[in-house]
Amino acid sequence: MAQDLRSQEIKNPVDVAEYLFRRLKEVGVESVHGLPGDYNLVALDYIPKTGLRWVGNCNELNAGYAADGYARVKGISALVTTFGVGELSAVNAIAGAYSEYVPIVHIVGYPSTLSQKNGALLHHTLGNGDFTVFSRMSKEISCAVSMLNNQHEAAVLIDNAIRECYLQSRPVYISLPSDMVQKKIDGDRLNTPLDLKYAPNDQEAEDYVVDVVLKYLHAAKNPVILVDACAIRHRALKETHELVEKSGIPTFVAPMGKGAVDETLPNYGGVYAGDGSNKGVRERVESSDLVVSIGAIKSDFNTAGFTIRMSQMNTIDFHSYGVKVRYSEYPGVRMNGVLAKVAAKLGKLNIEAGPKPNNDIPQREASSSEPTVTHAWFWPRLGQWLQKNDVLITETGTSNFGVWETRFPAGVNAISQVLWGSIGYATGATQGAALAAKELNIKRTILFTGDGSFQLTAQEVSTMIRNKLNPIIFVICNNGYTIERLIHGWQDEYNDVPEWKYKELPRVFGAEEGSVLTYRVSTKEEVEKLFEDQEFSSGETGKMRFVELVMPWDDAPAALKGVAEAAARTNARLSE
Amino acid sequence: MAQDLRSQEIKNPVDVAEYLFRRLKEVGVESVHGLPGDYNLVALDYIPKTGLRWVGNCNELNAGYAADGYARVKGISALVTTFGVGELSAVNAIAGAYSEYVPIVHIVGYPSTLSQKNGALLHHTLGNGDFTVFSRMSKEISCAVSMLNNQHEAAVLIDNAIRECYLQSRPVYISLPSDMVQKKIDGDRLNTPLDLKYAPNDQEAEDYVVDVVLKYLHAAKNPVILVDACAIRHRALKETHELVEKSGIPTFVAPMGKGAVDETLPNYGGVYAGDGSNKGVRERVESSDLVVSIGAIKSDFNTAGFTIRMSQMNTIDFHSYGVKVRYSEYPGVRMNGVLAKVAAKLGKLNIEAGPKPNNDIPQREASSSEPTVTHAWFWPRLGQWLQKNDVLITETGTSNFGVWETRFPAGVNAISQVLWGSIGYATGATQGAALAAKELNIKRTILFTGDGSFQLTAQEVSTMIRNKLNPIIFVICNNGYTIERLIHGWQDEYNDVPEWKYKELPRVFGAEEGSVLTYRVSTKEEVEKLFEDQEFSSGETGKMRFVELVMPWDDAPAALKGVAEAAARTNARLSE
Repeated sequence: MAQDLRSQEIKNPVDVAEYLFRRLKEVGVESVHGLPGDYNLVALDYIPKTGLRWVGNCNELNAGYAADGYARVKGISALVTTFGVGELSAVNAIAGAYSEYVPIVHIVGYPSTLSQKNGALLHHTLGNGDFTVFSRMSKEISCAVSMLNNQHEAAVLIDNAIRECYLQSRPVYISLPSDMVQKKIDGDRLNTPLDLKYAPNDQEAEDYVVDVVLKYLHAAKNPVILVDACAIRHRALKETHELVEKSGIPTFVAPMGKGAVDETLPNYGGVYAGDGSNKGVRERVESSDLVVSIGAIKSDFNTAGFTIRMSQMNTIDFHSYGVKVRYSEYPGVRMNGVLAKVAAKLGKLNIEAGPKPNNDIPQREASSSEPTVTHAWFWPRLGQWLQKNDVLITETGTSNFGVWETRFPAGVNAISQVLWGSIGYATGATQGAALAAKELNIKRTILFTGDGSFQLTAQEVSTMIRNKLNPIIFVICNNGYTIERLIHGWQDEYNDVPEWKYKELPRVFGAEEGSVLTYRVSTKEEVEKLFEDQEFSSGETGKMRFVELVMPWDDAPAALKGVAEAAARTNARLSE
Repeated sequence: MAQDLRSQEIKNPVDVAEYLFRRLKEVGVESVHGLPGDYNLVALDYIPKTGLRWVGNCNELNAGYAADGYARVKGISALVTTFGVGELSAVNAIAGAYSEYVPIVHIVGYPSTLSQKNGALLHHTLGNGDFTVFSRMSKEISCAVSMLNNQHEAAVLIDNAIRECYLQSRPVYISLPSDMVQKKIDGDRLNTPLDLKYAPNDQEAEDYVVDVVLKYLHAAKNPVILVDACAIRHRALKETHELVEKSGIPTFVAPMGKGAVDETLPNYGGVYAGDGSNKGVRERVESSDLVVSIGAIKSDFNTAGFTIRMSQMNTIDFHSYGVKVRYSEYPGVRMNGVLAKVAAKLGKLNIEAGPKPNNDIPQREASSSEPTVTHAWFWPRLGQWLQKNDVLITETGTSNFGVWETRFPAGVNAISQVLWGSIGYATGATQGAALAAKELNIKRTILFTGDGSFQLTAQEVSTMIRNKLNPIIFVICNNGYTIERLIHGWQDEYNDVPEWKYKELPRVFGAEEGSVLTYRVSTKEEVEKLFEDQEFSSGETGKMRFVELVMPWDDAPAALKGVAEAAARTNARLSE
């Protein structure tokens, strides 16, 4: 009773679920991924009510991957699962988003607060009355955990969670108990949009760092810029582009930074990854007397097995959490403001031109009479077929290493999971990315995955069909887990996968007659014809395109071979 | 060097991985489920070397479900995943096994101890150098966590983990770093088999409890026995059968105890689940003056929404952790010994005959001219088709509620996940159960799942094909998540699923021409013909059989309707 009275005092009451979904819409979410489950059903009613779209994935892991893909295109995403069974299935996807700085708001439908208080022996529990165990697990992989157990806290917790998600660019976890969904809270708060601006740097500190950076820049004889994942994930691309374009400094990307820089710029030089670098890049970067490193993540796969060689004495590191010049650290000075001011105050620099990016098809491949499609031939060739603003998803394996040799047109959004490296990710992510691309009127979303990886999450092709998405899907048919073979078990059975009739899947998954174009290409000539086929390439028809791309089982991109050897060595290295 | 010398002192050295897999074989594991990943590859080499079979699942969640199904048939199972990405994908399956007392040894291939010590920035990490985060998450859903970071502890940790897994009948987690796989440990330990016997009860205490139980049994006028899940999961079926058969006491099962009792016995009376009970059962059980309850789990779905009504004053509870007679508790007195002695010393009892199990097809259904297959008709009909020793897996949804009305032949092993209730489980579990059944020369493994549930884990049909398994698969085609519709969202889009061409999947998943028989039945007459078809029913041909069973979207077993209403009420109930 007291409760009802209090609700009536609220001038503009809205239900908790409505508040939540309206906030999500405000920050750019238009579609919500996930699966229904009895503890979230009532909440799902609010999705159409607030003008959002329900995606309806096939399983929660795939939904999590899709949310990740969506967020990498739209900036943030939302995922709804149910308590226990649903949320735990998504944990790997959420951990990947945590690892790679992808903002996903994960909403978990919970049993009612009364059932929780009573420790009821409900389905989807461990049978021990503990309703906090799954949130404890998620705490390890979320930058905020908000338990909406009290209506008077709900709005504040929701606002904080979404803000943290965006600003830290990492997943947050929101529990939504079934009896909280319709509780009334203050809707007037929604008139004030969430403040998603990064806190500005202390200006004195920022100016100090800018001066230090400029001092080293002016002193440098042959500086280079190296752009990596965190420039993308922590939203410093605008400032990075300004610096790259205005300075003319030879610029390279780490594998995880692929797509961060306009590769058609005259000062773009290619991929730097130690032993796995594009031709000529390694020499240029490692002989530079100043590396301006923006958003680096120096993980094993991103550095071709820790083979990069840069002296800290020649390095300026820009990060979201601070800047480091040689060994001088400036914690709390976020890169964005510093980069912008450095670009504005550049003055005269010594520029020694870098190598022209050499992502041509190697002569040996171009002139070979061998018809099979090799990685050495394919990935450079792909670059010529890509179009401006394509969204390109590459699976961990031959694809996300192969793409190091692909030179992009401007505006390509390249998505892969180089650090977390969960196979199966790419197919799920493609569903989310393609939907986000559609919302942004981006024409083409292109997936490259392998047959082994595709099998983990294949049913998400069904979700693409359900949502009338029309990505271009390439399944590389090479009989199994090639990346694993290269590390260990070259011909062992455990690296084989059963051979599916991949291109029949869209039809079996319910695609309407004629709504999907399917292909199987196994020679270079067939690839050439496919790329020239306007119906295939243009995307004008609105049809999904599904390609079986046959490649030899024992072939792989050169970079992957090197990385796999390094990984095998690391695995075997003894500690004693 | 010191290390090498110490190894040489071991008389019969074996590699850590060999030791582990030989121990698993010793306790009954013949096949190992899982996926390859670079941190576990070297360990996988030991699977064929120790005479085990590698299953090679399509993804880790499915592999976990399969391991669960395998353990429910063979007594214990093993699952191999890789660090981070692999293990986290399996977490939901492991939590389910924890919840429902299923013993799975989960082996996770870890980065080398040296990489861990150095906090290396490796793929499959959160990028923060923390190599304990995933084991912390698994600790919540494992009865033991053994980190094999030291070769001198490895054998003891392995032995303890496997023993705990078996005795507590719950999952354990074993980390196996890549550099530990080939470390030498004492192979002579393997000459002493693991002691998997339950510690005997204190005899004086046990005899005391036996006397108390007998006193109440002798005083009772119309006792009944009620058997539930923990009688199965904590291995008290032998003692339970003795008591049931020797005493002649009317015996009932809870839904999770389905299959625990020989349903052809004259004193078997049917399923008791409050409002969801078989006809006549509720009255009989609730009017009894003594309920001998064995292994109860009084969860919402197992009690038809907490609608069972038994006074604790009329109840004796047998559990793995103790016995409770009325309100007198005897902790630490395990049920097995007590049950055996009670059965041996029964003496004269008052037996009031129970109802005959009434799982006939209801008259209204039998005489209906309506051709569609209703749940009210189907599940009783199924009982007539089942055969002795069938393994029967029913998915959470219409199937595991429908089966309450199915009377089993002797020896049926009924597998479902009534407490954890993760949809998608059943298809994965069928792969493991069918493989275990094959190893035990059990002829038929039968799956009932719904179209919505099937879509979560459909690719495991491919693993069945790869392993030449021949289960009988029924996919109930009723356009979506019927169990959710009944709770909330009767016709809402979020409870729909896209319509697949289900029976084409085995072929697309690589089944050889003619190796799979496929069917689509949508009338009672077609079901009758199918059941009479010897090629379909016998299993002699060694072929997988895949049936699309069309049922109305808005029909459900009566028990499910009741439970769903109760769940909706519980979800909506307000705490304030």
